[in-house]
Amino acid sequence: MPVITLLTDFGMEDEYVGIMKGVILSINPLVSIVDISHQIRPQNLTQAAFIVQAAYQYFPFGTIHIVVVDPGVGSDRDIIAIRSERQVFLAPNNGVLTLLLERENIISVTQINNSDYYLKPVSHTFHGRDIFAPVAAHLSSGVNLEQLGSSMDKGKVVRLTLPKPHIAKNGELVGKIVSVDRFGNLVTNIETDLLWGFCSVDSQGKLLVKVGKSKLIGISHSYASVVHKKPLAIIGSRGYLEIAVNGGNAETYFGTSLGDSVRLKLPK
Amino acid sequence: MPVITLLTDFGMEDEYVGIMKGVILSINPLVSIVDISHQIRPQNLTQAAFIVQAAYQYFPFGTIHIVVVDPGVGSDRDIIAIRSERQVFLAPNNGVLTLLLERENIISVTQINNSDYYLKPVSHTFHGRDIFAPVAAHLSSGVNLEQLGSSMDKGKVVRLTLPKPHIAKNGELVGKIVSVDRFGNLVTNIETDLLWGFCSVDSQGKLLVKVGKSKLIGISHSYASVVHKKPLAIIGSRGYLEIAVNGGNAETYFGTSLGDSVRLKLPK
Amino acid sequence: MPVITLLTDFGMEDEYVGIMKGVILSINPLVSIVDISHQIRPQNLTQAAFIVQAAYQYFPFGTIHIVVVDPGVGSDRDIIAIRSERQVFLAPNNGVLTLLLERENIISVTQINNSDYYLKPVSHTFHGRDIFAPVAAHLSSGVNLEQLGSSMDKGKVVRLTLPKPHIAKNGELVGKIVSVDRFGNLVTNIETDLLWGFCSVDSQGKLLVKVGKSKLIGISHSYASVVHKKPLAIIGSRGYLEIAVNGGNAETYFGTSLGDSVRLKLPK
Repeated sequence: MPVITLLTDFGMEDEYVGIMKGVILSINPLVSIVDISHQIRPQNLTQAAFIVQAAYQYFPFGTIHIVVVDPGVGSDRDIIAIRSERQVFLAPNNGVLTLLLERENIISVTQINNSDYYLKPVSHTFHGRDIFAPVAAHLSSGVNLEQLGSSMDKGKVVRLTLPKPHIAKNGELVGKIVSVDRFGNLVTNIETDLLWGFCSVDSQGKLLVKVGKSKLIGISHSYASVVHKKPLAIIGSRGYLEIAVNGGNAETYFGTSLGDSVRLKLPK
Repeated sequence: MPVITLLTDFGMEDEYVGIMKGVILSINPLVSIVDISHQIRPQNLTQAAFIVQAAYQYFPFGTIHIVVVDPGVGSDRDIIAIRSERQVFLAPNNGVLTLLLERENIISVTQINNSDYYLKPVSHTFHGRDIFAPVAAHLSSGVNLEQLGSSMDKGKVVRLTLPKPHIAKNGELVGKIVSVDRFGNLVTNIETDLLWGFCSVDSQGKLLVKVGKSKLIGISHSYASVVHKKPLAIIGSRGYLEIAVNGGNAETYFGTSLGDSVRLKLPK
Repeated sequence: MPVITLLTDFGMEDEYVGIMKGVILSINPLVSIVDISHQIRPQNLTQAAFIVQAAYQYFPFGTIHIVVVDPGVGSDRDIIAIRSERQVFLAPNNGVLTLLLERENIISVTQINNSDYYLKPVSHTFHGRDIFAPVAAHLSSGVNLEQLGSSMDKGKVVRLTLPKPHIAKNGELVGKIVSVDRFGNLVTNIETDLLWGFCSVDSQGKLLVKVGKSKLIGISHSYASVVHKKPLAIIGSRGYLEIAVNGGNAETYFGTSLGDSVRLKLPK
C-alpha cells in the first residue's frame, strides 16, 4: 500500500479535501491517504514549509507528499515534483519546499506538464483536484516522473527567504517564533545543532532565555522538570528550541506570538 | 477496496464519527472510508445538499455515500438509499439529496427498513451509528439493496425548495450566495450553463457583477488575473459563479455573506 | 486489516497526528487507522476517559486503541498497555482509562519499557511519535505484549476520581454534566441503569428534571417528541441521560455547561 500525504490550507469544512481523496481512489484504490494538516493559514507558505520539514521524514520509503498551498493557482506558476532519495514531493513552485531542499539530497526536479494525467476539464481554481490528486495517484500506480513532465533545473526551484537566527552585537543568539502549536508551545527557528554550537551542553542549565520581557534560565529536560504552570525552554519534537509552560499555554503566559523574538544569552 | 464516504454535521470533537468508522470496519474491514465533511452547520440541509452535489461525482464507481444531517432522528422520518447509475446514496428522507436528484439518473429508491442489518439496540438519537453505518457496510460487503428494505416511489423522496436564480424586471440575473468557503470565497447558485445562456462567452469581460453595494466588471480567468488583494468574479470549482479576492477574503472584503444576492447586468 | 485508533489532544492544525500515522504505516502498512478525536481539551483526562468509554466497544476484535492525553510526557510516568478480552489500550498511566477499567474484564496490564520497539532518539516531548505509534504498530504486526514490556499489577493502574451521581438529602438524584457535544447536548453522568433504578420506566413520563433554574418533565423518546426548539431529557447514544433541545442547542438554551448539576425528582 503506497502512502500519499496531503498538506493544504483547504480547511475541513468544505468538500475540497474529500474530493481530492475521491480522485486519488478513483485512479488507485490501493493507496493509504494520510492528512498532515488542512489548517495551514490561508496561503501561508512559511507555515507550510516548516510543517513539510517537520513531518516528511516519518513516512515510509516511496511516500508521495502533496502540498497544496497555492496562492498562484490558475496563473502561470509551475507545478513541480521533487524526488529525494526516499520520497517524492508534489507542490506548486512557490517556495513551499524551501526547507526540504536544505535538508534532503535532491535526485531530480520535474516540471509537471503532461495533461494526459490531469482530470479534465482543468479548472483555474482547484488544481488540487484536477492536477495534484490525479498526478500523485498515477505516480503511486507506477507511472514514472519522466512521463508526467519534463526535467527541470534544480536552480529554478523557488526558495523562500525564511527568518534565520543570528548573533546580535551584544553576543546574544536571536531567533524567532515560527510556529505556535495547539498547546501554545512557541516553536523557534533555533535548531539543536545551532544551539549546541552557541552554548555547550554542559552550560545549558545556566543559559539565559529571553522571551518578550520575561526571562528563563536553562534548557529543561522535560515539561515536568519545572513545577506546574511554570515556563521552560526545551528541545521540541521538531528539533528546535521551544518555549512552553508545564500544564499551561506559553503563548498566553508570555503574551508573545508568531514572529516575536527569542534571545539566548550565555552565562558569564 | 470499496469506498464509503461520510458527510455529517457531527463535528470532529466528539466520538461520533470515529464510532461510525468502527462500526463499518467491524462489518467490512476492507473498505476505504473518506470524510467529505463533518462541519456542516448543525442540521443545515441546504448546505449539505450543495456539498453532496459538489463532491459525489469525483468518487469511484460503486461508492456508497452516507449523509447524516438528520434533525428528525428518532422520529418517523424514513431512511432511504438512492441508487444512481454509478453510486449509492444513504440519507434521511429529508431533502438532503435534492440537488443530486436534479443531476443524476435515478435507478431505484429503497426505504431502508430491514432491522436485521441494524446495530442493536437501535438508539433514538444516533442512527449514524445504529443504522447508516452498518447498512452501508453490509451494502459494501455485497448485500443487495433489496435485502435492506423495500422499494419506494421516487415521487416520495422529499425535496427542498432551494434558492434558484431568476431574471429581475430590470433584466438582471439575480443569484444568491449559497456557500462561503474557508478562503472567504462566495459561492453563488448561478451555474455555468445559466451564466453562458445569460451572457455570451464573448462579452463576459464586460459583464457587470454587483455584490452588495459594490461592483465588479467581467468574469476573470484565474485569481491572478487581477492584482493582489483585488476582487474578481470567476467560475469556481463547483461549476458555479464565485466572488473572490486574489490573495484575500471576499466575505470580509464585501461584508456580505450567506444568503445575500449577487446580480449580473449585461453590458449595453 | 487490523485497526489502530487515535485519541489525543493534539488538534488538527499541527503535524503531530499525521506524523504518528506515518510512523505506524512505516512499520505496518496494512493497518486501518481511525481518528476518534484529536480535539480533547489540552490535557483533560476526564474528557478523554469518557470518550474512550463511549467509543471502544464499537471497534472490531483486536483493535489497538492509542490514547495520548499526556501531561506527564517526558517525566517518569509509565506507559501501559491494558488488554481486555477483545482489545488492547495503550496510554500513559495517568487515569485516562479509569472508566474502561470499570466496564471491562481486564486480562493483563503491561508496563511498556522495551526500547527496542521505540523510534530513536526518543524525545522528551512527543512520545506519541516515539513510543505509542511504533509500539502499537509492532503490536498490530504480531509482536506480543510480553515482548514490549513487563507485567504490571492491575492495582498499580492510576484511576481518576470522577464525579459520581448521588442521592441528596431531599431524595433527589444529583448528576453532573460531564460532556457537551457539538449540538450543545448536555451529557450527564447518570447512566441508564441508575436512572431506571431511581425511577421506574412506567413513571418516567412524570419525572421532574432540573437543569440550572429550569425544569423539564419526563424522559422523552426522541428529539421530535417535543415541539421544535423546546427542551427535553433523553437517553443519549452513550447510554447516559442527556439534556437537549429539539432543533436547537441546550447549552445556549439553559445557560449551563460542563460541571453543572442536573437533578432528578420523583413524581409524588
